[in-house]
Amino acid sequence: VSERYVRQAEEGRRQTEALVRVLLSQRCLPARPWPPRALEFAVAELAAMDSNNFPLNAGVGERESRIFCPLVAQRHYYMGHGIGRSGDLVAEQPKAAGSSAIYALTNALAADALRESGIRGLGACAVVPLATGMSIALVLLALRASRPAATHVVWTRVDQKSALKAIATCALVPVVVANALVGDEVRTDLAGVEAAVQRVGPEKVLCVLSTTSAFAPRAPDDVVGIGGLCQRLGVPHVVNNAFGVQSSKTTHVLSEAIRTGRVDAIVQSTDKNFMVPVGGAVIASPSREFVDAVSRSYPGRASMSPVLDLFMTLLSMGRDQYKHLLAERKELFAYFTGRMQALAEAHGERLLATPHNNISFGMTLSTFVGSGASKCSPAFVGSMLFSRGCSGTRVFTPGDERKKVCGVEFASYGAHADGYPLPYLTAACAIGVTRGDIDTFVERLDKVLHEAKPAREQAQTQQR
Amino acid sequence: VSERYVRQAEEGRRQTEALVRVLLSQRCLPARPWPPRALEFAVAELAAMDSNNFPLNAGVGERESRIFCPLVAQRHYYMGHGIGRSGDLVAEQPKAAGSSAIYALTNALAADALRESGIRGLGACAVVPLATGMSIALVLLALRASRPAATHVVWTRVDQKSALKAIATCALVPVVVANALVGDEVRTDLAGVEAAVQRVGPEKVLCVLSTTSAFAPRAPDDVVGIGGLCQRLGVPHVVNNAFGVQSSKTTHVLSEAIRTGRVDAIVQSTDKNFMVPVGGAVIASPSREFVDAVSRSYPGRASMSPVLDLFMTLLSMGRDQYKHLLAERKELFAYFTGRMQALAEAHGERLLATPHNNISFGMTLSTFVGSGASKCSPAFVGSMLFSRGCSGTRVFTPGDERKKVCGVEFASYGAHADGYPLPYLTAACAIGVTRGDIDTFVERLDKVLHEAKPAREQAQTQQR
Amino acid sequence: VSERYVRQAEEGRRQTEALVRVLLSQRCLPARPWPPRALEFAVAELAAMDSNNFPLNAGVGERESRIFCPLVAQRHYYMGHGIGRSGDLVAEQPKAAGSSAIYALTNALAADALRESGIRGLGACAVVPLATGMSIALVLLALRASRPAATHVVWTRVDQKSALKAIATCALVPVVVANALVGDEVRTDLAGVEAAVQRVGPEKVLCVLSTTSAFAPRAPDDVVGIGGLCQRLGVPHVVNNAFGVQSSKTTHVLSEAIRTGRVDAIVQSTDKNFMVPVGGAVIASPSREFVDAVSRSYPGRASMSPVLDLFMTLLSMGRDQYKHLLAERKELFAYFTGRMQALAEAHGERLLATPHNNISFGMTLSTFVGSGASKCSPAFVGSMLFSRGCSGTRVFTPGDERKKVCGVEFASYGAHADGYPLPYLTAACAIGVTRGDIDTFVERLDKVLHEAKPAREQAQTQQR
Amino acid sequence: VSERYVRQAEEGRRQTEALVRVLLSQRCLPARPWPPRALEFAVAELAAMDSNNFPLNAGVGERESRIFCPLVAQRHYYMGHGIGRSGDLVAEQPKAAGSSAIYALTNALAADALRESGIRGLGACAVVPLATGMSIALVLLALRASRPAATHVVWTRVDQKSALKAIATCALVPVVVANALVGDEVRTDLAGVEAAVQRVGPEKVLCVLSTTSAFAPRAPDDVVGIGGLCQRLGVPHVVNNAFGVQSSKTTHVLSEAIRTGRVDAIVQSTDKNFMVPVGGAVIASPSREFVDAVSRSYPGRASMSPVLDLFMTLLSMGRDQYKHLLAERKELFAYFTGRMQALAEAHGERLLATPHNNISFGMTLSTFVGSGASKCSPAFVGSMLFSRGCSGTRVFTPGDERKKVCGVEFASYGAHADGYPLPYLTAACAIGVTRGDIDTFVERLDKVLHEAKPAREQAQTQQR
Repeated sequence: VSERYVRQAEEGRRQTEALVRVLLSQRCLPARPWPPRALEFAVAELAAMDSNNFPLNAGVGERESRIFCPLVAQRHYYMGHGIGRSGDLVAEQPKAAGSSAIYALTNALAADALRESGIRGLGACAVVPLATGMSIALVLLALRASRPAATHVVWTRVDQKSALKAIATCALVPVVVANALVGDEVRTDLAGVEAAVQRVGPEKVLCVLSTTSAFAPRAPDDVVGIGGLCQRLGVPHVVNNAFGVQSSKTTHVLSEAIRTGRVDAIVQSTDKNFMVPVGGAVIASPSREFVDAVSRSYPGRASMSPVLDLFMTLLSMGRDQYKHLLAERKELFAYFTGRMQALAEAHGERLLATPHNNISFGMTLSTFVGSGASKCSPAFVGSMLFSRGCSGTRVFTPGDERKKVCGVEFASYGAHADGYPLPYLTAACAIGVTRGDIDTFVERLDKVLHEAKPAREQAQTQQR
Repeated sequence: VSERYVRQAEEGRRQTEALVRVLLSQRCLPARPWPPRALEFAVAELAAMDSNNFPLNAGVGERESRIFCPLVAQRHYYMGHGIGRSGDLVAEQPKAAGSSAIYALTNALAADALRESGIRGLGACAVVPLATGMSIALVLLALRASRPAATHVVWTRVDQKSALKAIATCALVPVVVANALVGDEVRTDLAGVEAAVQRVGPEKVLCVLSTTSAFAPRAPDDVVGIGGLCQRLGVPHVVNNAFGVQSSKTTHVLSEAIRTGRVDAIVQSTDKNFMVPVGGAVIASPSREFVDAVSRSYPGRASMSPVLDLFMTLLSMGRDQYKHLLAERKELFAYFTGRMQALAEAHGERLLATPHNNISFGMTLSTFVGSGASKCSPAFVGSMLFSRGCSGTRVFTPGDERKKVCGVEFASYGAHADGYPLPYLTAACAIGVTRGDIDTFVERLDKVLHEAKPAREQAQTQQR
Repeated sequence: VSERYVRQAEEGRRQTEALVRVLLSQRCLPARPWPPRALEFAVAELAAMDSNNFPLNAGVGERESRIFCPLVAQRHYYMGHGIGRSGDLVAEQPKAAGSSAIYALTNALAADALRESGIRGLGACAVVPLATGMSIALVLLALRASRPAATHVVWTRVDQKSALKAIATCALVPVVVANALVGDEVRTDLAGVEAAVQRVGPEKVLCVLSTTSAFAPRAPDDVVGIGGLCQRLGVPHVVNNAFGVQSSKTTHVLSEAIRTGRVDAIVQSTDKNFMVPVGGAVIASPSREFVDAVSRSYPGRASMSPVLDLFMTLLSMGRDQYKHLLAERKELFAYFTGRMQALAEAHGERLLATPHNNISFGMTLSTFVGSGASKCSPAFVGSMLFSRGCSGTRVFTPGDERKKVCGVEFASYGAHADGYPLPYLTAACAIGVTRGDIDTFVERLDKVLHEAKPAREQAQTQQR
Repeated sequence: VSERYVRQAEEGRRQTEALVRVLLSQRCLPARPWPPRALEFAVAELAAMDSNNFPLNAGVGERESRIFCPLVAQRHYYMGHGIGRSGDLVAEQPKAAGSSAIYALTNALAADALRESGIRGLGACAVVPLATGMSIALVLLALRASRPAATHVVWTRVDQKSALKAIATCALVPVVVANALVGDEVRTDLAGVEAAVQRVGPEKVLCVLSTTSAFAPRAPDDVVGIGGLCQRLGVPHVVNNAFGVQSSKTTHVLSEAIRTGRVDAIVQSTDKNFMVPVGGAVIASPSREFVDAVSRSYPGRASMSPVLDLFMTLLSMGRDQYKHLLAERKELFAYFTGRMQALAEAHGERLLATPHNNISFGMTLSTFVGSGASKCSPAFVGSMLFSRGCSGTRVFTPGDERKKVCGVEFASYGAHADGYPLPYLTAACAIGVTRGDIDTFVERLDKVLHEAKPAREQAQTQQR
């Protein structure tokens, strides 16, 4: 092999290695996407630093990351030691320097991604291999260590089970604060939150748990107001920001809440915000100490899989493309609601006025009620959509039934407020949705509404 | 294409599909390993049943399993919805019938594997995407829901942090029961356990947490005795069986404990017993209701990754090969301890007499103490082994230092008993270890002991 | 599992299977790209029809497609029987119905892709696992079977070795026809071709081998003219269309040549036209019989790997995206030559006027000649570009050296014509190039020319 | 990250890189298998040296290895430039130093594997991405360049089409030498070979093409005798050793033929001898010059896929395991023929006495002839086996039909000799077969013979 070609080839290989070196030194999102090859190369280089991958290693412990199935070994790039050590998630593992480095880098990349999304004032964040609900539980348990006497969580009602379940799982007492109905929109009742805290007694309140991402007609909580209130009353404030990172309005108000009030932790899903499989969350806080306390409270080791997913995704995405995806989602939200507006009008319905929610929105299904016939009820519209390949919509129908979740009874469950008066269907414009998805959905919904009409009319006629 | 060939080919494809059908109907370990191709085929068939993989699907929810990075999508076989729904891990997901089926099958396969390992009397088990420590926490939280007044956990001392941390994380009070020293071996002090329960008051004891797998010189706990005691006193009994599934002695005593006394839950690691990457555990119980309660207590969704690992591993292993691995481990334990016995004698040391522990064992390092020189201390021997590519050993040196874990102070931390008198080094003969690993380790240890000798002698000479 | 979800999931799986069924029945490019999952699913379904993948098969032949290395098995999706049987490439293999189906489908997809590229009048095509040079050899050998007395190939000069080598490898005598120089452009000398055929005697001419894709300043051959001439003289006409499929001008003239004259075979590379790894070619002909004769002339079996690459690529591309890539290349050609025009002017050079070549173009390096110094020669400019990460350029310098290829001597080798007067550098705008590639190249070339200038001027000064 | 862990991790990575360095310096089979991870790591390191994988490369050529489909890119580990350059297969590619290195290493590994199999006296070998038939054609074409006047190939009859087809494809005239029938076995008629050469005239004979691997009752050719004859007459000798590398008897006689006579080239299949997918062959020769001439005669580039398969397979196999596979095949041959002997006797049949063939063997089906009924003919037995999942057997029935292949007419086609008197079924004991395969086959054959018996007896009764 001629000298000159070898030099060129070595130079080429160095370019690939340089990507890794730059990442290790700058610890932030690369401006441009890493190609798949560079990504696989980087992961292979790091995996080679885990002891189970040393060709000369002889392991005589009880856990030596021997992976039986070659397909399983491959899908984890031959890493098996997980993350965490002696009950500290971020503790570096002697046997797994490569895995430890990937975890440290992922935490840094996630922090950078949150920054790029617009959240200001964060001190640190930890990616945990737990979805949002369990991550909130982990935060509550960590808070409890520092406030052993506090047994209640003041929680503004959101009709999604995970958060309430997280409170119950931790053997804490939920104090549900009802929301205010302003026009079509369901909003934080700030006075109600304060009243709840005072009723329980601030010292017995583990935290106020607010929510910034929810289905319409629920608006994101007034986290600035709640943050101020928590600061004033000396009560911790945890924000369930499940899929709120993708909304610049939400990241803006979170920054404001941090700047002007109290925010102890913000929990967000990795799958919903960064397009990875379900299984991870980012726990962020203005306080590095708090994040460290959460990491330290984790008992034992944990799966590295959701961490690796986020690591690979953020590198294969890069900063520019991430910002492009955010911008695109915003544009598509306008497009989607525009098309829905037109569709609603054509069918004698309208969009719910929920100006604070810019991810999820609702369309009334008022003309479908009152018929009494199951073949043309709002719920049937939802069911028709599902069987026609439209996933993700939810249908609410007003009624008298009450639903019990973790021992708490709710009226009008699904609408986030007692006695919500209108039937509606929600849809969301989430990161990664395409114009094609939207168009297909709108067409199918149009068809479904047309198909449901005769049955509806017939039913209504019969009723008369 | 001629008729006859097509018929033959269809028949061949049917043979592959039949593997899946048999699995779905029998829900137990296949006798023989599935070849990689069949495994990939089966996973692909199931993944095609998740809505994000429907070619005609239009998703307008906030979570549509859009996976950004193709490499990430691939490593999860294009499944992204995770497991769990509305806070019930085993609830079937409407959008993810394939993922749900894999989870249900994995639970069945894990139950079968536990049965094959020798544990009798189980009612059900759940694979959870949490390692042992966090799984114990989950079990404690689930117990708490049914015993809200109970705040203490009686725990027989084991010098490994996860379990203690799990207790603390749940804001429960650990009541540590000291062990008895019988010859070299550290054993359960059954009377001590009973005294502890009585001291706290049975109704305030959430459970007794016993341990069946630990490093020598700790013996597995007397779970039959503890089980009897718990039944008598009406206190739940949770067993931390982290890596005990691989020992037929342990699975036998667990069966006895279930048959004759009270066992509420047995928690075992998937990585240590089934050779998958860290990140999962199997929570088993004689009571299906209890397993269901644990599943229902999980707040929200969770990663499917550790579940998929176990699913693929158990199918690629098959029953016969699993039993072969268990038998081989047993044989190698005899081989390993035999070689170590010889080595110990050659160096003026001996193996610790720990007849109840048949996974981990210890060799004294008595000739290395008292020199005062760091270059020839027991700890230095451990460090030399690590830097010579031997992972998994632990070294204990007697001394006066005390260690605090989760607020509890321990003397002689590492030896599981206050004032353990001997310095020693432990090694384990765990599933998947090879004769080659053992031979390499023994040779390197021999070399290390020889190398350390001159420094030791010199130091000892100087001391005189 | 509830009935309704199962139905939905089955429906989803059917949607995926339907993709395969539609492909099998329509045998043409799908309009829209297949997602990776569907692609893997389809390949897995077909692979399951090869006998080595039947779970119950017992093979006692000498070739049973036992693949030793799991990574190799995987990268071939567990197919190993190759293509071809008893010396007929398209013969279906009894043991490998799935592989046979993939090959048949790929031939159909390739035919469709050629149609979409604009070539009209084709009767059939065969994808062969041979690159262009060896494919031309195969065509020549197949022709020879029907014209055993013909020993000469009349070939219009192109300064690229493969075709000439193919002629020599087949033990045929090349008759090289010199090109005409028209302005900067090197064009077919049609009269020269006719003279050559007549000189040898048409019955001794196996075929005229023309070329439609070459580096500037060579124009594509006048295949319409040659086709007419071949028809008149009763001589076969083979076209080396190596990377010409991507140019609509070229596909148009090929269609005209087929319509109005004689074309026996057109050979094109799969890697250069369809972005797969090197190793395949498409042999197309207006006559299905001729394609069948080529397939039948292939001795024995052959690798399926290049076939599988093309199969997967065409499905993952789809018709619309293929057409988009073609359109984009055309636009970028204008952009690229525009930027080069400006650059050339800024450096006192110009683009060669080669209006018939719309893939490759040349820029003069006239100001770099005559210095005699190696540090500023045209060749040095090429070398600087290579070591600055620009691949794919070629540099020609006029001179007296003669080069011998397969026994034939050429003057001005590289420029396709004796005594080509100008030094130049070529670049190509090939399918898949990006605006970013072009911009980077132009910037680096600019820098290189600037850097080379002082050395050049100094050298020129010294010469005076 | 602590210093000590980093040092350990770096050391571990170096151990992996050392594997590659040792391979590059020693260029022979590693004693022990490389684990999958090390293999993927090595390929990734080498792929990083191809220019299309340089992160900063800007390609403006017509072939820049842009791979459209990510799944295709992955399965080639991101290498796409193929092998060969300017019509020399082993020429190093400036743009693809990594691919070039893999090709050079594979040629070295293949040479080492042939050595380990027992072939002595080889000067060099080249792995070509062509199966055996086309590789023989390539050898013939390369020979022709040095013997332009030679037009005939003297070929000892073997009833398999590829070799004859290779001769015809090259427009050469086959001179078929009939074999001698010695007992059951079909052997080389050495005198016949000499007579044929003399009849044509040695100067017109391009080569004698002998065969060392064939289905019973054909014995491997007497290559020592033919080699001596070729040396005496000054005629090249090419050996078709398709699947003979796995037989130590055959590699021994090949060594003898090289030592005592003339052998110009030996061609062997990669799939049949080394368990890779179909598509490659190893062309070996005592003369390095001849191998170089073959490589240089290849027109243009070629697929690297079969090369990469062999590279990965030989490293994942290692020397010891390769020798183990060879030894195991030998043992299983004795086992297989032993079981067949017993089966044959039980059914009133016997094994053909073919002492020189130790891969393939035949069992008579004498009791199945003469019935005239199709339901119990020898051919029907073969067909029943195929439809019961037994692949690889061949059935011969004596008869008067003649078969034409490439213009040559053969009587008793399949038995390698005119008028072969017995009906029989062949099976082979090839590398990679398992005891399980053999047992299953013997059981199914037993069942088939039993099932066929009544029909046979009935038919025979009717005939009387």
